[in-house]
Amino acid sequence: MKRVGSQTSVRHLGRSLQQRQVPVRCVSHQFHTKSNDLSKEAIGTAAKLPDAEPIPTKHAKHTTTLKDIIERRKKAGKLVAGTAAYSDSDMFKAPSVDKPAAKRWDHHLSKESISRQPCTLKAAAKYLKTPGLISLGGGLPSPEHFPFDSISMKIPSPPHFSETETSTMGQSVRLGKYDVRDQAGRPDGAAYDLSIALNYGQATGGAQMMRFVTEHTELVCDPPYADWRCCLTVGSTGALEQAYRMFFDRERGDSMLTEEYSFATALETAHPLGVKVVGVRMDEQGLLPESMDQILSEWDESARGARKPHVLYTVPSGQNPTGATMSEKRRKDVYAVAQKHDIYIIEDEPYYFLQMQPYTGQDTPPVPSPASMEKFLDTLVPSLLSLDVDGRVLRMDSFSKVVVPGSRLGWVTASEQIIERYIRHSEVCNQGPSGFSQAILYKLLDETWGHAGYIEWLMNLRLEYTKRRDVMLAACEKYLPRDIVSWTPPAAGMFHWLKVNHELHPDAGKRSILDIEVEIFKSCIEKGVLVGRGSWFRAEHNEEPRDMFFRATYAAASPDNMTEAIRRFGEAVEESFRV
Amino acid sequence: MKRVGSQTSVRHLGRSLQQRQVPVRCVSHQFHTKSNDLSKEAIGTAAKLPDAEPIPTKHAKHTTTLKDIIERRKKAGKLVAGTAAYSDSDMFKAPSVDKPAAKRWDHHLSKESISRQPCTLKAAAKYLKTPGLISLGGGLPSPEHFPFDSISMKIPSPPHFSETETSTMGQSVRLGKYDVRDQAGRPDGAAYDLSIALNYGQATGGAQMMRFVTEHTELVCDPPYADWRCCLTVGSTGALEQAYRMFFDRERGDSMLTEEYSFATALETAHPLGVKVVGVRMDEQGLLPESMDQILSEWDESARGARKPHVLYTVPSGQNPTGATMSEKRRKDVYAVAQKHDIYIIEDEPYYFLQMQPYTGQDTPPVPSPASMEKFLDTLVPSLLSLDVDGRVLRMDSFSKVVVPGSRLGWVTASEQIIERYIRHSEVCNQGPSGFSQAILYKLLDETWGHAGYIEWLMNLRLEYTKRRDVMLAACEKYLPRDIVSWTPPAAGMFHWLKVNHELHPDAGKRSILDIEVEIFKSCIEKGVLVGRGSWFRAEHNEEPRDMFFRATYAAASPDNMTEAIRRFGEAVEESFRV
Repeated sequence: MKRVGSQTSVRHLGRSLQQRQVPVRCVSHQFHTKSNDLSKEAIGTAAKLPDAEPIPTKHAKHTTTLKDIIERRKKAGKLVAGTAAYSDSDMFKAPSVDKPAAKRWDHHLSKESISRQPCTLKAAAKYLKTPGLISLGGGLPSPEHFPFDSISMKIPSPPHFSETETSTMGQSVRLGKYDVRDQAGRPDGAAYDLSIALNYGQATGGAQMMRFVTEHTELVCDPPYADWRCCLTVGSTGALEQAYRMFFDRERGDSMLTEEYSFATALETAHPLGVKVVGVRMDEQGLLPESMDQILSEWDESARGARKPHVLYTVPSGQNPTGATMSEKRRKDVYAVAQKHDIYIIEDEPYYFLQMQPYTGQDTPPVPSPASMEKFLDTLVPSLLSLDVDGRVLRMDSFSKVVVPGSRLGWVTASEQIIERYIRHSEVCNQGPSGFSQAILYKLLDETWGHAGYIEWLMNLRLEYTKRRDVMLAACEKYLPRDIVSWTPPAAGMFHWLKVNHELHPDAGKRSILDIEVEIFKSCIEKGVLVGRGSWFRAEHNEEPRDMFFRATYAAASPDNMTEAIRRFGEAVEESFRV
Repeated sequence: MKRVGSQTSVRHLGRSLQQRQVPVRCVSHQFHTKSNDLSKEAIGTAAKLPDAEPIPTKHAKHTTTLKDIIERRKKAGKLVAGTAAYSDSDMFKAPSVDKPAAKRWDHHLSKESISRQPCTLKAAAKYLKTPGLISLGGGLPSPEHFPFDSISMKIPSPPHFSETETSTMGQSVRLGKYDVRDQAGRPDGAAYDLSIALNYGQATGGAQMMRFVTEHTELVCDPPYADWRCCLTVGSTGALEQAYRMFFDRERGDSMLTEEYSFATALETAHPLGVKVVGVRMDEQGLLPESMDQILSEWDESARGARKPHVLYTVPSGQNPTGATMSEKRRKDVYAVAQKHDIYIIEDEPYYFLQMQPYTGQDTPPVPSPASMEKFLDTLVPSLLSLDVDGRVLRMDSFSKVVVPGSRLGWVTASEQIIERYIRHSEVCNQGPSGFSQAILYKLLDETWGHAGYIEWLMNLRLEYTKRRDVMLAACEKYLPRDIVSWTPPAAGMFHWLKVNHELHPDAGKRSILDIEVEIFKSCIEKGVLVGRGSWFRAEHNEEPRDMFFRATYAAASPDNMTEAIRRFGEAVEESFRV
């Protein structure tokens, strides 16, 4: 497979959607240098050619390890990426010469997405590489007028992650306005500073976080096709809307598949776009592939009033609201159905790293926690992206559940074609995530913790959420009438899904399920507990539900409050059922 | 006019688009308290009823002063707004009982916008006001797991704004995770902290910055109708796309008006949505109202292939790319044409506070800078929003040009109806701006500088940009062939617009304007200067331009570089014109 150097940025901007070319791989260190050539104005400069040795080709099936990434970075030298520098994942990932190229999705894209052109002003940035050029081009303000000399933060020193430890022995790290310039002579000098992070940047996000998320994705998912790429997002809520607008056309009568109980916001995002939402039946492992296959095989456009679905939106781990997590086998089966029916998959994985320890019950000793980072990564169910030989998955990752929701920063991973269209939209709809968020997360995750420290953090979070879940399960076991309320212990995420057997209700058959659901919900409020009503999450709102559910989160409340809240919920159910 | 108390949040969520009710005003301090009632869990609590005296009614025509705002805050007591608390501008602005209500814009809205429903999960937050309630409802992570103990920043102490002064005598301010809880007993205790800012919040942005931008808007624009409101944005790029989606329908064959030379990104955002863009002729003051009136009066739907425009997008101050600034009279004339033809106005004002000192030439003494904040505010040309008796303007404000672009935080101001629709979209497309950005800007602008310090900063910036512009104008006067290149000294913004008289070109009539423009542009690159080509900004790309322009920014380069760059540009022009 062909390799190209630093022309990617320029070439890429002008590439037509229609071109069907073999993906090209970049060597992973073209964006770095060990030289101290920082004398020129850094504004808008793009990739720098390496002076390090090319990275040896790895076998496609070989999984990237932490050690590989550390070694790769060492060989590449310091990252040099100034204000608004272009970057993409190819600059930072291992060359994947033996992997197949992704399929093309032109036939699934919307009119809107297909008609997007590259941003004129951003395309002009290619001239900034000209040596000695002075730019009077872009309207980038001078950092001289940025009213921040530095930003510091106090953060945990792995493995001391608790609030008390952070407060007493946390490390203070500082991000100055001109760190890159001021430390240019040092091989370990800063790769990011406020003058860069707080100016305008590429809609992909800065190279600094692009490198981190690309490496993290390679470490965790290692997609089995060649031309995968990442793009930073303003969080998965925004990423999902962008994805919908890429794939759905109102005039085409488009529809989409999702879990029959689905994330309410995902549904509310789809409806105003005129997308018909179709719910696929679920069990305790989420989507039932047979149900999906049946819906698609029997699709009758005129009866359904919509075109056969060409997109699946799914939350495979710790699904919201049901807490269901698909096993590896289940994911493979769902993927196979998607292949059979030419379905593109939007995989929303905010809870991926909230996969918890297996639940053993109150009186059984707990399963020992993973003994090493490698073992921890091995315990995780593979992402659909990891199984994605066709490049038919857009995976959405988020820092909201594992770092902070307020960063409004996440990333998507998909094939080059899809990411390119996504970027074209980001350029005009948000210009990428906040520079404060990027700078602070870079400082925390990359420069201070590194991949190893971040994975330690995630391992710690796994145990914290395991504790939280176990408190809720203990409360359920103690306070809920087991003949009426049933549940599956969640294996991931934030949500516990409680099924209430409406058939045992004294008014069963006389009153609707919804009616009883409202009664219990209102009684809960009166007793002082807020839970989610199952019907809020129905993919098909107009269909009468077959069962009654409530959603309870164990993410937020303290253990005592959680236990009391479940007691109140149990009381509300018992009163309604008159037991 | 009716006044309501704390029910706004709940009532508001359920209000139908179709309802045509008299706007209701809230007293401005309902969100505050002087009591220390912070014992309850703050998560999700909404407005608190005041224990302060009601604010006396002001006359509609009276302009709000800094003193009024300081007094109002004092009376209202400490702002109490916990995690994801609902807020709106009515909580923070003066009651405007004598002002008319905004007109309704239902007939201009898109199908997409009209069909938006409130977010189910956010609507459920209303129950969180129930005393003693424990929430297992929303999936908000516990701040216990946020890996930030505190964030500090070093910022200028007004009026010492220079980088050197900031570095040597700037103030260090700190934002802790639980400042609100820890300082609950103090009347001057913190109103914002990391546990709130970094969790999920309302799509409007947090109450803390909502208060600041509302007061700032009242101080600067004081809209002449009653039911205006603000909503934070992820920057004006995103706000504009959201506005387009509110007003434009592909199926309806919609079109919009804008300056004949317009912001390239604004055009590139419109095209994929199927919006036909129509350019209005300009002079050195921007939009020509007569041209606008003529286009609209003579509109022929079948000849134009689009519905008569119902929206104007305009940059009234320091327009991009022409640098034109509309006078007050011009704004009034444009507004009158908009009234005549039922046009809704999207006013994009990123350069509003880059209105500079009048240009007096190189040898004439400069005009003295404004002697006080009041005088400074008086020098500013009124915003279209300030003239907006109908509520037909959506004003977009940005911190990008006056604080930092990387905050990706701005705000919009419009009538309650329009802001409500805007919020419904924000809930599913970005959930509001980054919490890091909100926290840091709040700490800088509100808690540390206050409105007075921020206005001092803006006054300082006015002088800094005046200096930058004057360097560029001096260079132009020195190095450009005045018979070929002409310009109007910009009164605002970042851009200098250079007209090149193509009629004097030796190949005039033989080669197209575009052809000569490309020649000069390429020669500029060879000589080492990047400028913007005028044709990049043509609202109607398919029309042959009548004139030749280049855009040069004085925002970024150093004085020496700027001068050298203009010299190179002059050389390129002269070579092309063979002089």
